[in-house]
Amino acid sequence: MTDHTRISDLPKLVGQTATLRGWVMTTRSSGKIGFIMLRDGSGYLQAVISRGEVIDEIWERFEQLTQETSVAISGEVRADRRSPGGVELGVRDLEILGKSEDFPITPKEHGTTFLFQHRHLWLRSRRQVAIMKVRHELVQAIRDFFYQRDFILVDTPILTGSIGESAGTLFETQYFDLGKAYLAQTGQLYLEAAAAALGRVYCFGPTFRAEKSKTRRHLTEFWMVEPEVAWFDSEDNMKLQEEFVSYIVGRCLDRRREELKELERDTAPLERVVPPFHRISYTDALERLRALGAEVPWGKDLGGDEETLLANSFDRPVFVYNYPKEAKAFYMKENPADPRTVLNNDCLAPEGYGEIIGGSQREDDYDRLLCRIREENLPEEAYGWYLDLRKYGTFVHSGFGLGIERTVAWICGIPHVREAIAFPRQMHRLFP
Amino acid sequence: MTDHTRISDLPKLVGQTATLRGWVMTTRSSGKIGFIMLRDGSGYLQAVISRGEVIDEIWERFEQLTQETSVAISGEVRADRRSPGGVELGVRDLEILGKSEDFPITPKEHGTTFLFQHRHLWLRSRRQVAIMKVRHELVQAIRDFFYQRDFILVDTPILTGSIGESAGTLFETQYFDLGKAYLAQTGQLYLEAAAAALGRVYCFGPTFRAEKSKTRRHLTEFWMVEPEVAWFDSEDNMKLQEEFVSYIVGRCLDRRREELKELERDTAPLERVVPPFHRISYTDALERLRALGAEVPWGKDLGGDEETLLANSFDRPVFVYNYPKEAKAFYMKENPADPRTVLNNDCLAPEGYGEIIGGSQREDDYDRLLCRIREENLPEEAYGWYLDLRKYGTFVHSGFGLGIERTVAWICGIPHVREAIAFPRQMHRLFP
Repeated sequence: MTDHTRISDLPKLVGQTATLRGWVMTTRSSGKIGFIMLRDGSGYLQAVISRGEVIDEIWERFEQLTQETSVAISGEVRADRRSPGGVELGVRDLEILGKSEDFPITPKEHGTTFLFQHRHLWLRSRRQVAIMKVRHELVQAIRDFFYQRDFILVDTPILTGSIGESAGTLFETQYFDLGKAYLAQTGQLYLEAAAAALGRVYCFGPTFRAEKSKTRRHLTEFWMVEPEVAWFDSEDNMKLQEEFVSYIVGRCLDRRREELKELERDTAPLERVVPPFHRISYTDALERLRALGAEVPWGKDLGGDEETLLANSFDRPVFVYNYPKEAKAFYMKENPADPRTVLNNDCLAPEGYGEIIGGSQREDDYDRLLCRIREENLPEEAYGWYLDLRKYGTFVHSGFGLGIERTVAWICGIPHVREAIAFPRQMHRLFP
Repeated sequence: MTDHTRISDLPKLVGQTATLRGWVMTTRSSGKIGFIMLRDGSGYLQAVISRGEVIDEIWERFEQLTQETSVAISGEVRADRRSPGGVELGVRDLEILGKSEDFPITPKEHGTTFLFQHRHLWLRSRRQVAIMKVRHELVQAIRDFFYQRDFILVDTPILTGSIGESAGTLFETQYFDLGKAYLAQTGQLYLEAAAAALGRVYCFGPTFRAEKSKTRRHLTEFWMVEPEVAWFDSEDNMKLQEEFVSYIVGRCLDRRREELKELERDTAPLERVVPPFHRISYTDALERLRALGAEVPWGKDLGGDEETLLANSFDRPVFVYNYPKEAKAFYMKENPADPRTVLNNDCLAPEGYGEIIGGSQREDDYDRLLCRIREENLPEEAYGWYLDLRKYGTFVHSGFGLGIERTVAWICGIPHVREAIAFPRQMHRLFP
């Protein structure tokens, strides 16, 4: 079957003949000349068929083509400036490989529910292809960033006995005779153990929240990348974050400009994503929010609306740091300068996208950590191994988590995270 | 905290002073000269302390050092051919950062159960660090292989309503009001949909089997990479596999030679992993097995022992192709030349490691696929979307899955997959 060329390789073959395999998007015909818009995943191609230059049987096949018919087309590759990729194909031969009758997704408008019910077919649209390619680039950029900096990938478990953050929002499953296992909400705790072994580590996998949330920022299953670094304090952590976010955004701008154009993304705000990011303490952020008309009592976490409001007042991502202890997770290190707060930060994306990163320096003092576990009424025995990390050569360390779908949505400029993953999972959506 | 140097950077700093942060592995002392073996995840370093050259307090701190104490050490970087990395450190200053009393894993022998109960600490050992670094390299090599060849990464869902392969071995969880969700055993079915959109795709994530299996080749949670290619037949598929396996093995040989040496891996058999791999049909394999003393009735799948026996008779990986239909999954394409068999292949690694890949051309005929779904008594309605792929522009396509832990175990030359992942999950093991 490797007797065919991919559309993306055609510009190298001008003047030669080639065979392509792909799917028909649209056709039009003057009766004498016909046009086929073809896609094969690698790109888009206009094929031109002249009634006078092919035998009748080939022209008749052309006339049978419908949306999403799969075909093999052979012909001459011709330079054509107006065509996508700068080439078109002069059809000599056309073979129908798979018919397509009444393809459900037509060029007309469809409702969101209908489209997600047909997600397996909707993925073929230009817009979805573009989003998937940006996501693909983003993920590889993330892995390259850490690989180049000697971070060791450590895949942390999904099935966990101990618990990450919010016990109320866990999916659970029966695990043989060992009782319940929970789907991981984070790999962080395991990563901290790995950081003591390998220094700089990261995990990158699916995470789960059984949240009954219907916002445009939440999925029940989403991918998260989490680096963890031995001997990094909160300040180092924020520097790593701004370097990281700038790199991955820059990489998508560099290599996926065509897809961003397809998505009609204004790239100017993305071009501004370079260090240093803005920094504002939680306490100062409340003041700024007050000036913007939003009153948040000290001690309360910021909600999505407040994040949007705050982030919109900056021209690039902003770090909000040192949140109140009561609003954040038990493992965050107490701020020695103000013990009501912790050494953490969120990173908020501009243009209304809000939180894409949560990070912190971790509590490395055995007694203080034990005290926090008890204060939160967490099952102490499940955290025995985690406490061990503070017992045997404790170490300053920090890390963060970046949500992939939120970052894809931001870079692509799409309103909802559900389009940022091939088969989204929401509380009301488990198919296809 | 970025005031320190990593051990791996020391060779560049000979003649200069440096500060390191890490953990003490061992110490020894003549009373006048002391040696500290230090690790920081990036490498290993011998630090030398002379009683006459430091103040008493520093020497006293040296004498307090125990296994896994975390320290900051400053001193002069000196070239020393006998030392790991070719350098040693002449200690000027030594600070104890975190004590470590009675670290559970001592240089003496420990039982397997004990070690896995202390997996969070055991990861710090030289052997485990080496395995994790090989795994890390392997994963990046896999991603680079596909990225360079324009395969688009598509993350497929873990929570699934429809079912992959063996309904008997699924983990299930309650999914809001939608009934049960099952943890994915494969991303393949979703990938086939994505291949029609993007041409060449792959997924790479954790997969789950609730198998009550205690063999050295099984975990309940393991990582799998699965490419899927539009317009590839079974022959193209095997070519891709041999190119792929050769690349990832070669990359580990190139970049992780030190770790393979640490693991005392004989690399000669790995050097032989180059195309073409051996090929033998299932039917011929039975004959060869018979000659080797193992009788398998035609129609039965090969077991681990038979795979080992067969693979050991080849000097590099071997493809066993065209298995009986009854032994394999419903989605595999019927072999037109012999409809009792399917167009599939397994890839068996040598040296007793056995199956690392299962692959096949997929059934692209709507009627035959529906017939197979009915024959297997699968819930037809759950496969409606999957059948759609044969309804709207069907296409020849093939793909395969490679198990990461089996491949890590093979490359590292370790006997059991449980050491090939940081926190293994087996039927009797869910902690830490």
